[in-house]
Amino acid sequence: MQIAILLYDRFTSLDAIGPYEMLCRLPDTETVFVAEQAGPVTNDKGSLRIVAEKTLDEVRTPDIVVVPGGPGTRETLRNEALTDWLRAVDATTTWTTSVCTGSMLLAAAGLLKGRRATTHWLGYDELAALGAEPTGERVVTDGKYITAAGVSSGIDMGLTLVGRLAGDEYAQAVQLLTEYDPQPPYDAGSPLKAPAELVARLRSGGHAVVE
Amino acid sequence: MQIAILLYDRFTSLDAIGPYEMLCRLPDTETVFVAEQAGPVTNDKGSLRIVAEKTLDEVRTPDIVVVPGGPGTRETLRNEALTDWLRAVDATTTWTTSVCTGSMLLAAAGLLKGRRATTHWLGYDELAALGAEPTGERVVTDGKYITAAGVSSGIDMGLTLVGRLAGDEYAQAVQLLTEYDPQPPYDAGSPLKAPAELVARLRSGGHAVVE
Repeated sequence: MQIAILLYDRFTSLDAIGPYEMLCRLPDTETVFVAEQAGPVTNDKGSLRIVAEKTLDEVRTPDIVVVPGGPGTRETLRNEALTDWLRAVDATTTWTTSVCTGSMLLAAAGLLKGRRATTHWLGYDELAALGAEPTGERVVTDGKYITAAGVSSGIDMGLTLVGRLAGDEYAQAVQLLTEYDPQPPYDAGSPLKAPAELVARLRSGGHAVVE
Repeated sequence: MQIAILLYDRFTSLDAIGPYEMLCRLPDTETVFVAEQAGPVTNDKGSLRIVAEKTLDEVRTPDIVVVPGGPGTRETLRNEALTDWLRAVDATTTWTTSVCTGSMLLAAAGLLKGRRATTHWLGYDELAALGAEPTGERVVTDGKYITAAGVSSGIDMGLTLVGRLAGDEYAQAVQLLTEYDPQPPYDAGSPLKAPAELVARLRSGGHAVVE
């Protein structure tokens, strides 16, 4: 089984590495980081580079594709080499997945038309404008499409997919070995739980300071 | 402020990227991936390479150091270039931190003698043998040393540190923007919560299949 994780300029690192850390533990699986050009791809902060081992042309029939999000998604929406590749590989994937604004790339490729899907909580309107039907759930499965909410949700998506592919017991072993027993020091991880004034400030664009 | 994240052969990717994704959002901060040699460093699975932008010699006075764990830790314990560097930078750090078996490197450098600390739940005995006092907590602070439990716990450690450095409100904004509202599909993330027979199997070395 081959898992392709797509990289592009200004992706968010945890969007890619969260699901990777779960999925790379599947048995008999090759995981490959892929991008338009092979070589280092720079993240949204400019301080992390992950090496894309293969080009899009070299990965034509992955079983699973994972599309991370990030501030670079919006300009990538207009990159036809990328959306063409997503449409082409989707024809034979078993699962086509995304994290955060990565679902906008799937939608721009025409893959989420009329499908339930999710994205970063600040991106529901944009995702809807691309033809999907956004939900507020953390991990949304519609057919073979699994989309996850913002950044850290890719871990939950990856572990969910491990369970689908290798069974609950195997997935629990992966959870235990990665000690995925989260204990956030705050309870502000969703717009329903965070202080209302913080949510309002971020909605109005005041998140530049922490981006 | 400079944050140095140490890379070495066969590190575990989420150990490094979990805290990175939180800490890189701190204001007025430079985050740098550092290793013995500059260039791509390969993770424990062999399928991911992260670029170390600077050598140890080029990063002499980071304010914060983050040491990830991984299967490569044990052979790295005997790498004096690395433990010497940890001792040298620790002399001027504000915070010296680790994730998973990364604490064994700090301990091997003599930095955790008699200190409360943690590591991957399968590594308590080894950490104790290196002079630290292992606890079962997920994030342990003793003086300026913060050690986190297995793999995914580095996210909680990173967010805790963001709160210490930039305040609770700022940390909550980081949590909300990374949508860190974890919803694992299973509840098997610690040896106290996972099925007893699974814990016993992994303790007896039966984790090779999922590593």
